[in-house]
Amino acid sequence: MEVHNGAAISLIFRLELNTNVTSFARVASLVGDNGGDIIAVDVIRVSKETMVRDVTINVNNRDHGHKIASLLNEENGITVVAVSDRTFLVHLGGKIEVTPKLQVKNRDDLSRVYTPHVARICEAIHEDPSKAFQLTIKRNTVAVVSDGTAVLGLGDIGPRAAMPVMEGKAMLFKQFANVDAFPICLDTKDPDEIVSIVKAIAPAFGGINLEDIASPRCFYIEEKLKQELDIPVFHDDQHGTAVVLLAGLINATKIVQKPMESLKVVVVGIGAAGVACTKMMLAAGIKNILGVTLEGVLHRGKTYENDIWNWYAEHTNPENVEGDLASAIQGADVFVGVSGPGVLKVEHIKSMAKDPIVFAMANPTPEIQPELAAPYVRVLATGRSDYPNQINNVLCFPGIFKGALQARAYTINEEMKLAAAHAIANSVKDEELTEDYIIPSVFNTRVVKAVSDAVAKAAVASGVARRESISATYNF
Amino acid sequence: MEVHNGAAISLIFRLELNTNVTSFARVASLVGDNGGDIIAVDVIRVSKETMVRDVTINVNNRDHGHKIASLLNEENGITVVAVSDRTFLVHLGGKIEVTPKLQVKNRDDLSRVYTPHVARICEAIHEDPSKAFQLTIKRNTVAVVSDGTAVLGLGDIGPRAAMPVMEGKAMLFKQFANVDAFPICLDTKDPDEIVSIVKAIAPAFGGINLEDIASPRCFYIEEKLKQELDIPVFHDDQHGTAVVLLAGLINATKIVQKPMESLKVVVVGIGAAGVACTKMMLAAGIKNILGVTLEGVLHRGKTYENDIWNWYAEHTNPENVEGDLASAIQGADVFVGVSGPGVLKVEHIKSMAKDPIVFAMANPTPEIQPELAAPYVRVLATGRSDYPNQINNVLCFPGIFKGALQARAYTINEEMKLAAAHAIANSVKDEELTEDYIIPSVFNTRVVKAVSDAVAKAAVASGVARRESISATYNF
Repeated sequence: MEVHNGAAISLIFRLELNTNVTSFARVASLVGDNGGDIIAVDVIRVSKETMVRDVTINVNNRDHGHKIASLLNEENGITVVAVSDRTFLVHLGGKIEVTPKLQVKNRDDLSRVYTPHVARICEAIHEDPSKAFQLTIKRNTVAVVSDGTAVLGLGDIGPRAAMPVMEGKAMLFKQFANVDAFPICLDTKDPDEIVSIVKAIAPAFGGINLEDIASPRCFYIEEKLKQELDIPVFHDDQHGTAVVLLAGLINATKIVQKPMESLKVVVVGIGAAGVACTKMMLAAGIKNILGVTLEGVLHRGKTYENDIWNWYAEHTNPENVEGDLASAIQGADVFVGVSGPGVLKVEHIKSMAKDPIVFAMANPTPEIQPELAAPYVRVLATGRSDYPNQINNVLCFPGIFKGALQARAYTINEEMKLAAAHAIANSVKDEELTEDYIIPSVFNTRVVKAVSDAVAKAAVASGVARRESISATYNF
Repeated sequence: MEVHNGAAISLIFRLELNTNVTSFARVASLVGDNGGDIIAVDVIRVSKETMVRDVTINVNNRDHGHKIASLLNEENGITVVAVSDRTFLVHLGGKIEVTPKLQVKNRDDLSRVYTPHVARICEAIHEDPSKAFQLTIKRNTVAVVSDGTAVLGLGDIGPRAAMPVMEGKAMLFKQFANVDAFPICLDTKDPDEIVSIVKAIAPAFGGINLEDIASPRCFYIEEKLKQELDIPVFHDDQHGTAVVLLAGLINATKIVQKPMESLKVVVVGIGAAGVACTKMMLAAGIKNILGVTLEGVLHRGKTYENDIWNWYAEHTNPENVEGDLASAIQGADVFVGVSGPGVLKVEHIKSMAKDPIVFAMANPTPEIQPELAAPYVRVLATGRSDYPNQINNVLCFPGIFKGALQARAYTINEEMKLAAAHAIANSVKDEELTEDYIIPSVFNTRVVKAVSDAVAKAAVASGVARRESISATYNF
């Protein structure tokens, strides 16, 4: 079954029409009657009897596109010359480029940016390695590192196939935060090799964004790199999700007027994101958190094969509750799902405390269909862009890295993540806050600056900044 | 002694002038009388009694700059507010950036370049890994890899200090050939670790430019990577130099009207570049080459500690000559120096055959001062930009990689390097060819296209291309 994931596929049909036999109106009605949505028409060439047009049509999925193509082809006077996919077109040759900040116009310029004068810059850095932060791209550049083992919902598809995601991430880093990011997709799954590679390539970078690395390997890799590198290492699937979740939760609790400390939270799916969300919520002062896996509620007195689950059972579930989701969720204030479709039932929600808050973040299909949940919840958020309250990492990673780079921080600590969550939450003003608007849009231009300023400040306050005078107007 | 390396240092003096006491004319004469060269003046602010100006002055070296600064400061009515170095200014924050090829303007764009639709691109590459060449930056992107062990003339200054050179190289790749290049400066000197790291990061790249890696390690690393990767690996210090040398030699022999096969060539300095130049000249048909080291002429019958010297003795020196440079160079047609200053004496040149050709490529100071050599040679080339006939790798690496990428070649072989050398040589038209113009300028816009077209064609002809239909107008 093809999942409807909230956005249509956009296809460009190049059609040749025999104008003696048919007209564009026939194309329009054929497409419309079969569920296609014409969004643009361009004329390519016209002769006495034929007209060639590029017709951009949104369809539900690939099969739907094939169906419309054959219906058009069967029609008298219409020939489908070609069908191209707009998503593939924007990916041709990749989505990022490496550009000089200044043009080399003459020999004088060349001697400055390259030999012989570049030698003086090299010598200056050799004498004082911290100058790399001033005189090289290290100041503003992040490596987006993946081994391609947990890409989107696709799983272990390898480093080549992971590239389009990492390129996309690099685009967003630049567009949203003016941070330079470069994809490093590694052709190895060995955790220790990944650690030593990232250490070795670190001289060029001011930060490491780990991405789409499978659990539990991702914990080891991140932990080890954090110990061994003097630049921030941040596994976005864990911490980015956790920061944006917390931002949403801060605003949701304002609406239901419950203090953070009093909440009972059930987390379903104790993988990388689930653990990070839990740690973030603990850091924010939430005391009663229950983690639910396929083996039931994580509790002390049982030994789990997955070591992080043992850690989890030790640090959550203060009343040491046992059982399944149905028992865990009774009286809960908040549901946090980072698992899979269909996990949460209406009955579960009905057993929650007054004003239930549901974060159903499974991608692309949430733990419960929003339409089903809506009548029973007070606040609902998902990972999807076609419903209100999208929990999207794009709200976090550009700003948190920019703030860390501005402060020249050697790590991204809990204080900086909490500061980022509050900055995202505060981007929705109190007078704007409603059940359907607890999280700002990813296109909200206030967010990145609010996050980076708050993060840089938190870096200085928590003693991890190497650059303490951060003016608000400082610009890379 | 500070070496005069062919380009002055450009300093910006911010001067405050008390206009009651002095005038700008006084500044101009003070600077001029002391060997400084004023090249620009900007007014920063003016008040009733003072004027602040930024004066850009070319000086010979840093000490010279200090001297002028103190002379100005001692002068009545002149205060030096600040001195900044233009070379340092252009390096602030690094010289390259990573930019999106298209802007993400709305949610629809976002869904195409990132989740959810990017998943379809990932799946397409997962099904057919060769699609990475179409749908990711692999098509047009080169890694510039260094361990920082042999940077310019500075030696082993480490990966951080090597970054400005690699960034400069990335700038030139983009500006001259529209090839995207990214610096990978490795914090390890272990050859096997370097090999495994480059293999691991290769998915993002269509080519590997090795740079400034010390000999003999560079041979092992390049050889091993060539065996194990399916994309071109090219150590520019070796092969770039060799290609441009051969281009110069092709044109020099046209002037002296000697056939390539008849030449006797003496190469001094049998390191990475010396070996590569020799291999290139052998491939071009030159038969009589003698390699000279501090231990004398490399010959059979002696076993050298440096293994590449044993290879060299086996494959050159057909008459198995022994002795030093003075004996080797007698009757030679060509001197090729990739060694150090002062190696070549006027007496040596005098003992060469008629119409001596001298390539004195040591950087920054050639094997003989050009002024000394000039009366005795027919054609003289150096590595310097302040004399005619500069042997500069910039003539080769952008075009050779562009050609290899266009052909989707899995290696850069001898045929492609020879094609590049001939294309560079032919960029100087026969009617333009003189003793002082055997090599085109690095700013000659014909060169890159000539080289890349020739290289792509040679890749197809020699069977190493994965993309056989290369139209001349094809453009990345």
